[in-house]
Amino acid sequence: MRAAFHEQLDEISDLLAEMAIAAGAAMNQATQALLNADLTAAESVISSDDHIDELTSEVERRCYDAAALQQPVATDLRIVVGSLRISSSLERMGDLAVHVAKQARLRYPNPSIPNELRASFARMGALADAITAKTATVITTKDVSLGPDIERYDQEMDYLHRELFAVVLSPTWSHGVEAAIDATLLSRYYERYADHAVSIARRVMHVVTGEPYADTQLVVEGPEAAPAT
Amino acid sequence: MRAAFHEQLDEISDLLAEMAIAAGAAMNQATQALLNADLTAAESVISSDDHIDELTSEVERRCYDAAALQQPVATDLRIVVGSLRISSSLERMGDLAVHVAKQARLRYPNPSIPNELRASFARMGALADAITAKTATVITTKDVSLGPDIERYDQEMDYLHRELFAVVLSPTWSHGVEAAIDATLLSRYYERYADHAVSIARRVMHVVTGEPYADTQLVVEGPEAAPAT
Repeated sequence: MRAAFHEQLDEISDLLAEMAIAAGAAMNQATQALLNADLTAAESVISSDDHIDELTSEVERRCYDAAALQQPVATDLRIVVGSLRISSSLERMGDLAVHVAKQARLRYPNPSIPNELRASFARMGALADAITAKTATVITTKDVSLGPDIERYDQEMDYLHRELFAVVLSPTWSHGVEAAIDATLLSRYYERYADHAVSIARRVMHVVTGEPYADTQLVVEGPEAAPAT
Repeated sequence: MRAAFHEQLDEISDLLAEMAIAAGAAMNQATQALLNADLTAAESVISSDDHIDELTSEVERRCYDAAALQQPVATDLRIVVGSLRISSSLERMGDLAVHVAKQARLRYPNPSIPNELRASFARMGALADAITAKTATVITTKDVSLGPDIERYDQEMDYLHRELFAVVLSPTWSHGVEAAIDATLLSRYYERYADHAVSIARRVMHVVTGEPYADTQLVVEGPEAAPAT
């Protein structure tokens, strides 16, 4: 029965890694939709979100089944509860990819972002890719030594988000209010996406170490991350 | 032992209601800070957030204790897991109040919002108040018949959020890009705050009915809510 329980936990972990990969693919495609005003890519992200939502339900169902089979305590209980929370974050990451894709669709056939912000959003997309890949690895391997990498990607994302404000508020911004708002909201979606990846990594660390989640830090020393805007 | 377990669950429920009231008080004070450029109110919201975070940790600790004592299954397990998720949403609602307060602080002594948006933000603040009060009641009473009220408040919040875009993008908008971005982000904080209240009510309904969370709707019939921007 204990072996069956651990098999269930492994299957849940596999589903979570699948969700991370799906959320990463969605954000990647959403970035392409944004950079290339690609309506097909945008529609694909929007329609694929159901799959991530189904995986969320599947994880939830399996967590309850696993808990009912084993009535876990201590670490096993932390794994079950942690899996539920990680699936919530991954579902939300998928939603944020949909928000980016909907923005690309809304402005189609025009681009959603002016040329001078293309490089920033391309970099945010690359960071989203990188942070998702690391997050999937952390979920699969429970290797919490990857935490600082995730934290660094998140810090760069925060930096790009703040930098974007400077661009849209500069006197040389010539694209008006709507483009500034579009860019700000889009940037915030990427920034929140990275925050969820950090939260997942902290959650895995909490499961592994048993420290209270609130006290779990990916990087013990170092400058404080900038507050979210 | 079972009586002790149910006592623990009641205590957790009381803590969640306390969190809801604290988050509501924070958002109320943040709205005052915003409408009146009140720095003292803003600072108070920001410094009070630690208390909500502490309550989150306390709920988490007690949920694990309760689970370890009773090894709950079925409804009891849903209550423990649901409580953890509700505490996450409430913590996030507190964070959103802090975001509003920080915006008021950032622009102090100037107002963060122009006069023509005061009525909208006053209404969003009132809706946040109302939805939080209902949410606290749902948490305490498990009275899921309040779901449709919560859904209606959320729909009005979504409507105000969309309407605000029309204002800041109108040709008569005379306050420039920065004020438009401020207003958009602030409006989004209120809109997300209400989304979390909806999510809490759905979670309580899921606990009470046992339906899968993904299928739980506060209003079975009616127009589809607008997508978040």
